[in-house]
Amino acid sequence: MKTYLECIPCFFKQAIQACTMLGLAESRIKNILDRIAYVLPAFSLSATPPEMGQTIHKIIREETGNHDPYKQLKIRSNELALALYPTLKHKVKTAKNPLFKAVELAIAGNIIDYGACSDLDLQDELDKIIAAEEQRIDREVPTLFNYSGFIKHLREARTLLYLADNAGEIIFDKILIKEIRNMYHNKDIYVAVRGSPIINDCTLEDAIQCGIDKIAHLITTGSDAPGVILHLCSKEFREVYEKSDFIISKGQGNFESLVDEEKILFYMFIVKCPVLAKALGCKMRDVILKNNI
Amino acid sequence: MKTYLECIPCFFKQAIQACTMLGLAESRIKNILDRIAYVLPAFSLSATPPEMGQTIHKIIREETGNHDPYKQLKIRSNELALALYPTLKHKVKTAKNPLFKAVELAIAGNIIDYGACSDLDLQDELDKIIAAEEQRIDREVPTLFNYSGFIKHLREARTLLYLADNAGEIIFDKILIKEIRNMYHNKDIYVAVRGSPIINDCTLEDAIQCGIDKIAHLITTGSDAPGVILHLCSKEFREVYEKSDFIISKGQGNFESLVDEEKILFYMFIVKCPVLAKALGCKMRDVILKNNI
Repeated sequence: MKTYLECIPCFFKQAIQACTMLGLAESRIKNILDRIAYVLPAFSLSATPPEMGQTIHKIIREETGNHDPYKQLKIRSNELALALYPTLKHKVKTAKNPLFKAVELAIAGNIIDYGACSDLDLQDELDKIIAAEEQRIDREVPTLFNYSGFIKHLREARTLLYLADNAGEIIFDKILIKEIRNMYHNKDIYVAVRGSPIINDCTLEDAIQCGIDKIAHLITTGSDAPGVILHLCSKEFREVYEKSDFIISKGQGNFESLVDEEKILFYMFIVKCPVLAKALGCKMRDVILKNNI
Repeated sequence: MKTYLECIPCFFKQAIQACTMLGLAESRIKNILDRIAYVLPAFSLSATPPEMGQTIHKIIREETGNHDPYKQLKIRSNELALALYPTLKHKVKTAKNPLFKAVELAIAGNIIDYGACSDLDLQDELDKIIAAEEQRIDREVPTLFNYSGFIKHLREARTLLYLADNAGEIIFDKILIKEIRNMYHNKDIYVAVRGSPIINDCTLEDAIQCGIDKIAHLITTGSDAPGVILHLCSKEFREVYEKSDFIISKGQGNFESLVDEEKILFYMFIVKCPVLAKALGCKMRDVILKNNI
């Protein structure tokens, strides 16, 4: 997905929110905004928003001298989500359609996104997911929640690549991956996380903390982009990507960076950006299960 | 008033909105945003927001090759407001307290601000002003609407300087200036407009179209800033400013640039910015009559 003009003020806004959350002084935040301004002219609107996100958070890491400023937040997100794991499992097990429920919960877990919503009240959001009988799905636009297409392609797939998004959310992904394993025994499943820390995105450390390595081949994109920018990914990742015949892509960043790809990709995310909501023709916080082929 | 970090994304947002309203292509808007980004590092947060506004609109004028891109909009605003003039006059004349009503209407006219709200539906806003029995005044915070202080200082004043803000709004100012003239005969009244075109701010041309030169000494700030940045104003303007013992300052831009001055200034504006609303402790669209001494 290209970058819209409206993304530009939002890049600065997200940087301010991230820096404020990290407790930086105003003068240091201004320095960071100045550095973002410095790279803006070289940034083309034909690039995807996660490419700018990568640059912004690289600047923040450099200026703070902290290679993983969201580390504590990620550990806490994992812990809070792990505490919910038995409840989530029970919800899936007792659901009329366990796979559908697992899909729904995996998307709901995408709310744990400190890139889009730095003032997220995590416990409150998790409570809402648990309390909700069902998630907010706009069934009037079937292409935005194509569950039947998802099942059809999933059934036929042999090699499945699951592109994770955030720490904490990975527990919700685990629920879905385990349910897919329960239903189908013929699949080779890969889970890819970020190559190194970027915002609160899931890294190897988080995935291992949550036991993903026990249920799938755990790999990384080899990149610190908050999305999957293929030319920045490692050769190993691209090989898995190429050989996969079904890809589940979690989150806005992965969607924005892969939406123009010609593969069987199913995007699962919660809409957290008004520009994207407008482009898709949906509302903020809608639950999306959309495919590109 | 200093510039807040939150003003920085808003500078880019306002530039996009202005350029979109002017019908510029995306690639040209990106060029303009790149030029704004280029000057950002040199812009200190201790400067006032109108100083950045001045730079942004200078860039837009240069890039469009149009020294007055809001010209048609200003003419239309003047025409629409002029058509309301008899109704406004009638409202003041038949009010229990004509001066209070004239103050209320002068502030209400500050809604005609294409800098803060480029998607303004002018006719709709004017209809609302006419339909309203009274304007939205938060009487719980008396310092934000200090009418008694205003009257006290006005009564004592000999030389009054009225700092106008927008085209169209100047008709509402005319109503107030005429009412002040009706009530007090001992005052020398100056009205200052911008020295050259900036956004939809009132210039000499607009003031003359609306007959301000017939009721007051009409001067300009000598500057194209969307506020009164004293060191950028002409010597002539500063002389009038110095000798005035009472100043009415219309609009957010004038407030932001003069709030730290040590003169008897009464600011009249509608709050159109969330950062300012937060700083003042009021709500968006509140009607403000506030003094600084």
